[in-house]
Parts: sequence; C-alpha cells; structure tokens
Amino acid sequence: MTKTTGLVEPALPSTMQAVVLRHGQLRVESVPIPQPTHGEVLVKVRATGICGSDLHCRSHTAELLAATKMATGTELFDIDSPIVMGHEFCSEVVSYGPGCRSTLPPGTRVASPGVLLRDPIRLIGFAGLDTPGSYAEYMILSEDLMFPVPDDMPDEIAAVAEPMTVALHAVNRGDLGPDDVPLVIGCGPVGLAVIAVLKMRGLGPIVAADFSPTRRKLAEALGADVTIDPRRASPYDAWREVARTDDPGQLAPQTAMVPGKFRSQAIFECVGVPGIIEQVLAGAAGCAKVVVAGVCMQPDTFQPTVASVKEITLIYTMAFSPQEYAEVLEHLGSGALEVGALITSTVALDGVPGAFDRLSDPEGDAKIVMLPQAR
Amino acid sequence: MTKTTGLVEPALPSTMQAVVLRHGQLRVESVPIPQPTHGEVLVKVRATGICGSDLHCRSHTAELLAATKMATGTELFDIDSPIVMGHEFCSEVVSYGPGCRSTLPPGTRVASPGVLLRDPIRLIGFAGLDTPGSYAEYMILSEDLMFPVPDDMPDEIAAVAEPMTVALHAVNRGDLGPDDVPLVIGCGPVGLAVIAVLKMRGLGPIVAADFSPTRRKLAEALGADVTIDPRRASPYDAWREVARTDDPGQLAPQTAMVPGKFRSQAIFECVGVPGIIEQVLAGAAGCAKVVVAGVCMQPDTFQPTVASVKEITLIYTMAFSPQEYAEVLEHLGSGALEVGALITSTVALDGVPGAFDRLSDPEGDAKIVMLPQAR
Repeated sequence: MTKTTGLVEPALPSTMQAVVLRHGQLRVESVPIPQPTHGEVLVKVRATGICGSDLHCRSHTAELLAATKMATGTELFDIDSPIVMGHEFCSEVVSYGPGCRSTLPPGTRVASPGVLLRDPIRLIGFAGLDTPGSYAEYMILSEDLMFPVPDDMPDEIAAVAEPMTVALHAVNRGDLGPDDVPLVIGCGPVGLAVIAVLKMRGLGPIVAADFSPTRRKLAEALGADVTIDPRRASPYDAWREVARTDDPGQLAPQTAMVPGKFRSQAIFECVGVPGIIEQVLAGAAGCAKVVVAGVCMQPDTFQPTVASVKEITLIYTMAFSPQEYAEVLEHLGSGALEVGALITSTVALDGVPGAFDRLSDPEGDAKIVMLPQAR
Repeated sequence: MTKTTGLVEPALPSTMQAVVLRHGQLRVESVPIPQPTHGEVLVKVRATGICGSDLHCRSHTAELLAATKMATGTELFDIDSPIVMGHEFCSEVVSYGPGCRSTLPPGTRVASPGVLLRDPIRLIGFAGLDTPGSYAEYMILSEDLMFPVPDDMPDEIAAVAEPMTVALHAVNRGDLGPDDVPLVIGCGPVGLAVIAVLKMRGLGPIVAADFSPTRRKLAEALGADVTIDPRRASPYDAWREVARTDDPGQLAPQTAMVPGKFRSQAIFECVGVPGIIEQVLAGAAGCAKVVVAGVCMQPDTFQPTVASVKEITLIYTMAFSPQEYAEVLEHLGSGALEVGALITSTVALDGVPGAFDRLSDPEGDAKIVMLPQAR
C-alpha cells in the first residue's frame, strides 16, 4: 500500500477549505475539520468526481429533499443549513476515531461508497457540515465501508469507482444474458459508465444514442459499437437493425400485438428528464427491459397502456452494494474496466463551482475530477 | 369429448344475434354469421365472460384505440364501425374453413386465447363484424389456437380460463420465489384471479386490499390470507406485519436509504387508474417488484425519484402465451385452480348491456358470465 503523506495527527489544523452549498450557491469557505465518531476514520481527500446528482442537488434542492423524503420518510438534510457535497472520491487515512480496528496505516489510500453507517445512515455529500462530502480537504468514512485503493491505480480512477459501481449495479439489475442487445439512451457520465461495464461483460453489440458528437465519440471510446444522433435517426430503428435474428435460439419472446424477430432488448435510460420514459416506451420492442438509471427529479407522465401492451419492465436503479463497489475497484485495478476516457478534465478545489457550470454543456466535459492537491 | 349439439352445417341460418358496440352504445342486433377463412373454425358460443377491458372499450373507445396504436403502430379497429366484443369464452366446433386439420369433430367443446392468427393478427373482440367476439351466437377461431375443453368442466369455468391465464401470466412475470410475500392491490376480477393463482402456487401469505367488503370476502374465498380495507388500515403496513423476518435466509435485499428486515415484496397492482402507481410507490418496501396488471387507459403521473430511491421494478403485464392458456385449462380441469367463487352471476345474451352497467358497482358482481343458451 502506498503511504504518501505520512501526515501526523498533531500537525492537523482545525479548519479546512471546502466547497459549501448554501441556498443553491457554491462557495469555497473555511469550515471545521470533521471529527470521526465510533468506527469512523478521518481521511484526506485526494481526488473527487463531480456527479450529476450534485448538479441536481444544487439546482433543485427542494425537489431532491421532497422526493427522498417521500421515498424514505426522512429529510436528507435541512434545506436552510449549508452542506458540502461530493460522494465520488479517493482519499488517504489520516487518523482513526474510537472503536476502530485501525488496520490500514495513516497514508494508505482508501475509497468508499458514499454512506456513513450511523443510525440512521447518512449519505456522504448530502448531510450536514459535521459529515462533509469530498468537495473538501478532509472528510470522515465508516471503517467498515473503506477499501484500500490498489497501488498502481491513479487517484482520479479510484474516484470514479463510485459512478462505475452505479453503472455496474444498473447492468446487474438488468440481468442481461448473452442474447440481450443493449441500447443506451443518453451518453452522459452514467450512460458512458454503463457502456464501459457492458463492454467489460462482453455484452453487445452496444447501441448508444446522444445528441452530442463529443459524447458519441466518448461512447465509442468506452465500447459502443453503434452510436446514433437521435436528430438524424431513430436509436430504436438502429437497435432493430443489429438485433434482428432468425435464429430460434436467440429469438426473444414477443407479444402477439407487437410481433418481431429480435433478440431481447435491454434499454438503459440514462437521461433522467420528464418525457424520456414516454419516448422510450414508444420506441421499445415488445417485452423490453428498461433499466431506468437516469434520475428524474420532477414528476413524470406517460401512457401506461403502451407499457402494458408491450409488456415492458421498468427497472429503477440508483444505489449499489459494498460488494459491487469492491468488484469495481478490482476491475479498475486489473484493467478489465477501462474508464480513462470518461475523465475529461481536472480542477483544483476552487475550480469546483466553475466546473458545475461547465458540466451543463454536453459538448464540454463528461466527468470532471477535482484534485485538492492541485491548489 | 362431449358432443352436445350435433349441429350440421346446412341447418345454419345466415344471421345471428350479437351484442353490437356502436359509438359507446351496446345493443342486441342481428348480424351475419362470420365465415372462417384458411385455418379457421366456425364455433358456437356456449359461455362468455364480461371483461373489464370491454367496459373500458365501451366507455373509452378513443383512448383505447389511441393507446394501442401508440404501442403497435396500427389501429385495432375503426372507431366509426360497429364491433362485437367478447374474448373470454367456451364454444363448440360447428364447421371448419379451408386448410384445417379438422381433428376435433363438430360439437366438441373448445376454448381459445382471444387471438386470430391472421397477418396482422386480430384481437378477438376488438375487430370488425366479420370476426366478431363472443357476445354473439357464433364466432370464428384459429384452429392452431383451439384447445378442447376437459369433459367435466362447466362451460362458464372454461370461459374464465382467459382471465385466469392473464393472472397466471402476471404471476409468472413476477417470477416469485418461496420467500416473496405478495400484496394484491385491488380485488376486482384481475386481482381475484391473481389471488387464486398465487394460492394454487403455494405462495404467501397473500395480503389483499380492496375498499369493497364483497370483494374482500371473495378474495378470502379465493385464497387471500389477510384482507385490508384501505379506508381503515394501510395495506403496506399490513404487508410489513406478515413479511417481517429475522431469518437471514429469508431477508430480501434492501437499499441503504430504505432499510428494513422483510421478505421480498411482490405487489400486484390490479386497479389500473391514474394515481395508483404513485400510491403503490409511496407504500412499497425497498427493492419491491410491482407487477402492473391493472390497465390504466389515461396518461399517468408519478414521482420517479421514489422508484429510484427504493429501486422498484415495475413489471407491466397484459397478455399470455398459448402454453400458459393450456396450463390454466389443465389446472381448472384437475381442480388445482378453483375459481367458482369468481363467477357471481350469469345472464342471457340480451342481458349483456345491463351486465355492463351492473359491473360498475364493486358491491355487486365480480365476473358475470353470459350463456347464449339461456335465451
């Protein structure tokens, strides 16, 4: 294991720089360094990815809180209190709180799913300033969810283990077999990560659609076999081109009302805006599985009879298990999962607010990684 | 095989009585007896069930046509032309059209899924007067989809093989294991049929919810273990009561944000009105499977983040395979599937329009079967 800083506890200042979200505004501020409680570890942030859900959280804080409260019964955080976002990260051990096994020495690089095992659990990056996310110099992790980062893995690759695991879980939720032909709708960071996982699993041919030429190029770099600009051609027709079969062994079940000779369709909806499900249902083949990886923050409307007549399955996906996270770290370490192309820029801590603005342009970046050391 | 009428072809008149739907109005009229084409069989209707989708089709013809056109690209039928509905039936062979194997002698009782194997296929009961549905004295079937009815099975039980197969297929789509605990929302004919199939499969305990005391009583007769009036108690709380477990072998996966110690949840949504999915999502346990057997004819709206955070799977279901239909006929014949309680009344052909009106009251009937011989 790499020990890079050899930082000792007494040298630690009491405050740190962090990107604070207050009422929809991001600003670099000086905030207290958090204190690990029982079973928790203070770590220093080495790299952190900027996630689309953080963009959502900045622009639609109230909707996010309302939606998660509807689902879980509890408030993620207080809308009037400042938070530090960031839940995709690579860090290094600084010091252990009480009740830890303390097996990894200070300086060991570690990564973790964005969950603190308190009761109730806290989502890292969506909680109060006492448990800040990774848009900061320091943060705290649960020792039980902490994984050492393989020696030769760059910090920024370890930081994208989180979104890659979201994608791995999405593909697992889709439960694709060798006869499934995937169609990825939307090649933002989630869609691109899904493509990389599909490629690693040997599933395909992979058809992918996005309006942006930059993103279509990235999709190809990450493993898409066919990319489509929906302004010029129907992604669903393109899918039918490659999925047509006369082999009875490959033929997917179809409904009487929507006949066709195709392999099974597994659509990955990676857009997450109102209206996209209606479009997907209209284009989908009979008996399609639709893995809904896009997180739509607004209420959405569609005509359910289309789903009924086509016998569609909508598989909503969002999180993942610690086992899946460990699996991704392993694949990233072994090179089985190649995602370097996903990272299009790096910024320093004070570049985070600007990076949020840049990410709204699909022609610009896919994944921007913040490196606090770059200051 | 029972040969009951011994009817010979030359004795056949050229017209028959049928319940015709014209612009939302049902009326008994005299219409031509249909002519079987290649591979088709003229049969005499012995019993036919009145289906909720026929009620929908009468009241919301334009919506039904628009929704099926959106899904299939073609019009089911011309809105300005009269049709004869009816797709749940028991009949008997009268005569064969050209190109038939003609293995079942005239008089043999036969049942069939509601599909004519023309190109494109026609849905029996949702097509022009030349291929009428079973609210008539005669109809035509595809020989390849025709199954003999077991000797000792009453006509009206054979007639409900169709809705029972819709339910069997819904349960198959749900892919329930022994650790799944089903929750049936809505105990109309679809919900009741689902309960009977779940019972036959030994899946349970079965929790079922309906506002109507009559329907809750029917649910119990068909196999529900716990029935709930949603006005008095939450069906989802009732489910949690019976599904709680500390057995790690039975414990279903849960998401970090929606923890709980429950067996897996399989909800059967058998209501099919706007707003019901939103309610189901709010009540559902983490990682629930929701089999959507209710067919909602209007656009529907829900908050997708609730589905995302809970990692819900929505499994839309509507049709079934001929194999599933044959399986149900077998189960009904062997007594493995007991559904007598489902049939609450019988009427003659001229009683069909009145039966449609009666079925809008949940305190009245579940399944009404029309017996043309009763005239």
